[in-house]
Amino acid sequence: MGNCCDFFNRQKNTNVRISLPAVCFVWQIAMIVLFGVFIRYDEESDTHWEEYRIAHNLSSDIENDFYFRYPSFQDVHVMIFVGFGFLMTFLRRYSFGGVGFNFLIAAFGLQWALLMQGWFHSLNLETGKITIGVESLINADFCCAGSLIAYGALLGKVSPVQLLVVTLFGVTLFAVEEYIILSLLHCRDAGGSMVIHAFGGYYGLAISWVLYRPNLHLSKRLGASVYHSDVFAMIGTLFLWMFWPSFNSAITDHGDGQHRAAINTYLALASCVLTSVAISSMFQNRGKLDMVHIQNATLAGGVAMGTAAEFLITPYGSLIVGFCCGIISTFGYVKVTPFLEKYLKLQDTCGVHNLHAVPGMLGGFIGAIVAAAASEEVYGREGLISVFDFEGDFADRTPGTQGGFQAAGTCVAIAFGLVGGAIVGFILRFPIWGDPADDNCYDDEVYWEVPEEEETIPPILEYNNHMIHKHQDISESNFSVEQS
Amino acid sequence: MGNCCDFFNRQKNTNVRISLPAVCFVWQIAMIVLFGVFIRYDEESDTHWEEYRIAHNLSSDIENDFYFRYPSFQDVHVMIFVGFGFLMTFLRRYSFGGVGFNFLIAAFGLQWALLMQGWFHSLNLETGKITIGVESLINADFCCAGSLIAYGALLGKVSPVQLLVVTLFGVTLFAVEEYIILSLLHCRDAGGSMVIHAFGGYYGLAISWVLYRPNLHLSKRLGASVYHSDVFAMIGTLFLWMFWPSFNSAITDHGDGQHRAAINTYLALASCVLTSVAISSMFQNRGKLDMVHIQNATLAGGVAMGTAAEFLITPYGSLIVGFCCGIISTFGYVKVTPFLEKYLKLQDTCGVHNLHAVPGMLGGFIGAIVAAAASEEVYGREGLISVFDFEGDFADRTPGTQGGFQAAGTCVAIAFGLVGGAIVGFILRFPIWGDPADDNCYDDEVYWEVPEEEETIPPILEYNNHMIHKHQDISESNFSVEQS
Amino acid sequence: MGNCCDFFNRQKNTNVRISLPAVCFVWQIAMIVLFGVFIRYDEESDTHWEEYRIAHNLSSDIENDFYFRYPSFQDVHVMIFVGFGFLMTFLRRYSFGGVGFNFLIAAFGLQWALLMQGWFHSLNLETGKITIGVESLINADFCCAGSLIAYGALLGKVSPVQLLVVTLFGVTLFAVEEYIILSLLHCRDAGGSMVIHAFGGYYGLAISWVLYRPNLHLSKRLGASVYHSDVFAMIGTLFLWMFWPSFNSAITDHGDGQHRAAINTYLALASCVLTSVAISSMFQNRGKLDMVHIQNATLAGGVAMGTAAEFLITPYGSLIVGFCCGIISTFGYVKVTPFLEKYLKLQDTCGVHNLHAVPGMLGGFIGAIVAAAASEEVYGREGLISVFDFEGDFADRTPGTQGGFQAAGTCVAIAFGLVGGAIVGFILRFPIWGDPADDNCYDDEVYWEVPEEEETIPPILEYNNHMIHKHQDISESNFSVEQS
Repeated sequence: MGNCCDFFNRQKNTNVRISLPAVCFVWQIAMIVLFGVFIRYDEESDTHWEEYRIAHNLSSDIENDFYFRYPSFQDVHVMIFVGFGFLMTFLRRYSFGGVGFNFLIAAFGLQWALLMQGWFHSLNLETGKITIGVESLINADFCCAGSLIAYGALLGKVSPVQLLVVTLFGVTLFAVEEYIILSLLHCRDAGGSMVIHAFGGYYGLAISWVLYRPNLHLSKRLGASVYHSDVFAMIGTLFLWMFWPSFNSAITDHGDGQHRAAINTYLALASCVLTSVAISSMFQNRGKLDMVHIQNATLAGGVAMGTAAEFLITPYGSLIVGFCCGIISTFGYVKVTPFLEKYLKLQDTCGVHNLHAVPGMLGGFIGAIVAAAASEEVYGREGLISVFDFEGDFADRTPGTQGGFQAAGTCVAIAFGLVGGAIVGFILRFPIWGDPADDNCYDDEVYWEVPEEEETIPPILEYNNHMIHKHQDISESNFSVEQS
Repeated sequence: MGNCCDFFNRQKNTNVRISLPAVCFVWQIAMIVLFGVFIRYDEESDTHWEEYRIAHNLSSDIENDFYFRYPSFQDVHVMIFVGFGFLMTFLRRYSFGGVGFNFLIAAFGLQWALLMQGWFHSLNLETGKITIGVESLINADFCCAGSLIAYGALLGKVSPVQLLVVTLFGVTLFAVEEYIILSLLHCRDAGGSMVIHAFGGYYGLAISWVLYRPNLHLSKRLGASVYHSDVFAMIGTLFLWMFWPSFNSAITDHGDGQHRAAINTYLALASCVLTSVAISSMFQNRGKLDMVHIQNATLAGGVAMGTAAEFLITPYGSLIVGFCCGIISTFGYVKVTPFLEKYLKLQDTCGVHNLHAVPGMLGGFIGAIVAAAASEEVYGREGLISVFDFEGDFADRTPGTQGGFQAAGTCVAIAFGLVGGAIVGFILRFPIWGDPADDNCYDDEVYWEVPEEEETIPPILEYNNHMIHKHQDISESNFSVEQS
Repeated sequence: MGNCCDFFNRQKNTNVRISLPAVCFVWQIAMIVLFGVFIRYDEESDTHWEEYRIAHNLSSDIENDFYFRYPSFQDVHVMIFVGFGFLMTFLRRYSFGGVGFNFLIAAFGLQWALLMQGWFHSLNLETGKITIGVESLINADFCCAGSLIAYGALLGKVSPVQLLVVTLFGVTLFAVEEYIILSLLHCRDAGGSMVIHAFGGYYGLAISWVLYRPNLHLSKRLGASVYHSDVFAMIGTLFLWMFWPSFNSAITDHGDGQHRAAINTYLALASCVLTSVAISSMFQNRGKLDMVHIQNATLAGGVAMGTAAEFLITPYGSLIVGFCCGIISTFGYVKVTPFLEKYLKLQDTCGVHNLHAVPGMLGGFIGAIVAAAASEEVYGREGLISVFDFEGDFADRTPGTQGGFQAAGTCVAIAFGLVGGAIVGFILRFPIWGDPADDNCYDDEVYWEVPEEEETIPPILEYNNHMIHKHQDISESNFSVEQS
């Protein structure tokens, strides 16, 4: 924090006092107008539900979709806000940014997601309205997940305004690729291995690659965890891990679809924990475990089951998926991330490459294989139709063809992530977004009022400490000369 | 912690070794007796459910109210214990008190709430019994929320015994005002903008006003957060934020009522986050965000939707409510709370004025407006009857009249809060409750065995540190002379 | 950390770099094979559900067991991973081990539990297959709970490999005693007072007794909490406390069974908080509360309701159970645990004796009494049959006999715990498991890569600190001579 830094600081202005409120206000007002024009309650959340229920021969209020999906919705909601949020608190001085910006961009993104997904999937062309219900809320949360994953690669290196841009484009791209994959290619992807994880992972990596910071080592001091920040991150890990069965089953078919997706995901996750621990221990001195692996790689099994969870992948198939993904993901943290940083100039703060991009891609291909292997013998005729939705225009599709389309869908997701991310990355390089200098990353001081830390310093040190703070204030005032 | 403090300490005895156990035991025994006399299982939790089910023509066990409401109940339960509890851990040395006393008073209050609400709402005059089911548990949790909100204004300045008194009266007043508002005035208030938030907020503020501490600045050192305590508080914030849709929909009508309430609340909360961030950033140097605003003001949208969430407020109407409340609440934290403290002698530790009192009041009036604007055209005849419960004695009520009663209900809630709080405040001024001195506030040492803090002090300091501790022990023994 | 320790370290090799990965891999591969041979989806999670539904005259998808039990399952899941996990983070330097090893052994145990419980309870002798559904997942989580409870007694004193052994045998013993108690003795024990808590508690205590460490006082420095680790532990406490009604109602009968179990547990827990606080305050200087009691004893009411929650114990009966257990458990922490350590050479890190063993045993006997007191008058003929499952071979059993069998079941659980634990303890004494030396307990450094702690040390100290670290490195290199 001496003179050496002044050079970089001179070029970077992290003041977001105008840009951040402006973006929030403009955006929120736009949302209100667009919601006023387009969004309405659907039949199950409208006061005319009673008539709808009778007309559709539903015997009771309990058959409202709310009761099928609301518990899963709340689990997904926890994953998005607490899961992703706390997973990103692991840095020693970026916990506010981790959980706080996650909160901001999810709240920002979900409104845009309701509109974008509505236009593509549930726009009533007669009335010009989008109707929403609990499934729309789940899908909006899913859509935000893509951008939150991308945030994982950028954590600590971007400004909140940049994150809003990332989310704005992220949600837009998501809705388009989702439309292509689910509607045009008619893929199944209930838990989003392709549309959420592969897309979000590569989207974040591409942005991070474009925003490469050659002098990031100057922030190295803050680019690691402390003891308690690692424990906070475990809150995120565990809520993600526990609720992943709900994530993968939230929008699958009522009845056996949701039931099976939850079981498969539960098994894959359990298996994944054991191999993550094994690899983590193998690669460390004296077999010590690394918190980074426990926090992240244990989740890879859930990511990789996103597509196949609703299929008849069988319980042991689920275990195998978890087994492999735990190994691949942990190995990625140990070897691939450092390699990418060194040789591909790809700085990936949370290792989304290993947790989302690769397991998501694998999940897409696993889904393709399981779909191609489906047979009427195992699924039953009705089962095959209901699981793969072989109806209407797609009534003639065979499992084999479906497998091919699933694989194609995975490629589409990755392509959207890479190309979209590269473009967004270039947009973010404009020097107007208030991002921090290379020596100023991973630091909450830049965008947050951070409380003074006195707690653990015994009184006898307070005088010295006071002096130090005074000194810091002086040097800080040097830093912010440009502002005054 | 020197001589200057002895003067105040001499007057205050914070020893609760007799009073706290005595109150807990007496109270709990009273509860057992009263439950023995009054409380029974309702038809849906009794072994005669099967007969009831058949008699009421319910086709399956799934139509037991348990399956309609239990997931929401658990979400509300999390909000009460983890949400409110962790939101109050933000002080650097009052986290034990924040989460621990919250736990105590909620567990204490919910039993009394089951009785009080039972007497007013579900006493069977023939048998003299109150029957309880899952909806009673939700209502009991709601009832505690009023007192927990009041605790927010008092945090760090009162003894646990005082808190039990606050809760005892708080629950009692709650049950009475709830009876007046919901039964006599026939208002709708499913999420409790009026009966929970406006009442609880003003109740706490009135108590705090009566208990004004002129020398509270002597505890200023502990009246702020540290880095990790702010992260703990975010756990509370997020669980409140995520589960607020369940809070507002927990006791609304089966089917579309619950569905719609959840959607509306979800939208208002999302919108509220953006404007809270915007205002927080606007008022700070260099656009930095303030954790206090992110932790609290982001929730105001949920508070303000407490009444209107089950109405057809429309999705964009919900966004507008969140938009305005985020601004008002954050502005309150920036400008109003300091003003109240300086000029009205109102010390409000958590800013319940900005998070509960004002948004709750606004929520009541928003509900009144939306109710008054309801029409058969939009709601449908059946919808109007079922949403506003225009049945029996109230079959002739029009939406316009209903709006008037809703507004009147809001005023009743505020009046109960202010008058009740003032009275309880005077009761709490008796010098028998073991409250801390003005220079001893916000400190867990007073009511908790706090572990020694050695962890982060390097060994070379341990000798000094040891000396300091020794010194502290000596001074502490001076403090407690009265006891020996 | 000087020479005095070298003697013990010389004997203990905590390197688990081979054993831990080996056990994980071998085990996980075995699981895959066994799952491949035995485990299949049940009718409700299979694609043939639609046919099953119609054949069984179920009117809608909502009658899939998934919708009856999945919300409870997720609550139980949270208790197992976040509840037990964070409850064990209270030690100042063993939070990684607390939450991390809990994660590992639960993920490890639940797979084995699905198999073991499947073989005993749902093996189809014709096909040779076990079919699983959401109830199986809940039971697997329950089964792990037994071993996690045992971990509570061993916390900080064993290696991860030992924990896997504890879990392997724990799950096996659990399945056997559960079979004896539930199937042969035909006891009811939905929330597992006997099969989970009494068994798990005594299992852990017996192991700990065999593994007695005479010089554990050398690790005393780390065998306590710090301020923030106590707050982390409160996360565990609260999630256990809040979701315990789901735990006790997760596998009870559909309809009134689940409803009643939730109400009873809710009440017992509330009552338990008040008496825990009362006793905690009574036994401390100046009435200060002890975090250990608030974190643990408040949960005893839920443990003790594990058997009786589904019976008609009445609401005030539930309050009485909570009342007594709060007293007994807190008293146990204050007086019994130190006594056991001193005179019985029983080191019980988390006090599972007071939270699980004794309340579990009491819960078994409470269940016996309530069962024996059941009458056709109160339950109704149908109610009696459905609550106690007086069908088939057991159609003639009277409530009185049932009470006797319940009491016998409690004894079986305790016997299994004590004998099984003693045997497992002896197995764990082989010097091959990588457990830490007596002066090296409660320390994450042994099995985890722990981040350097610099955050709170002001810069002026950094030079000193740096020197200290250097010094530590030197001494550490002495410690690990054996390895190089």
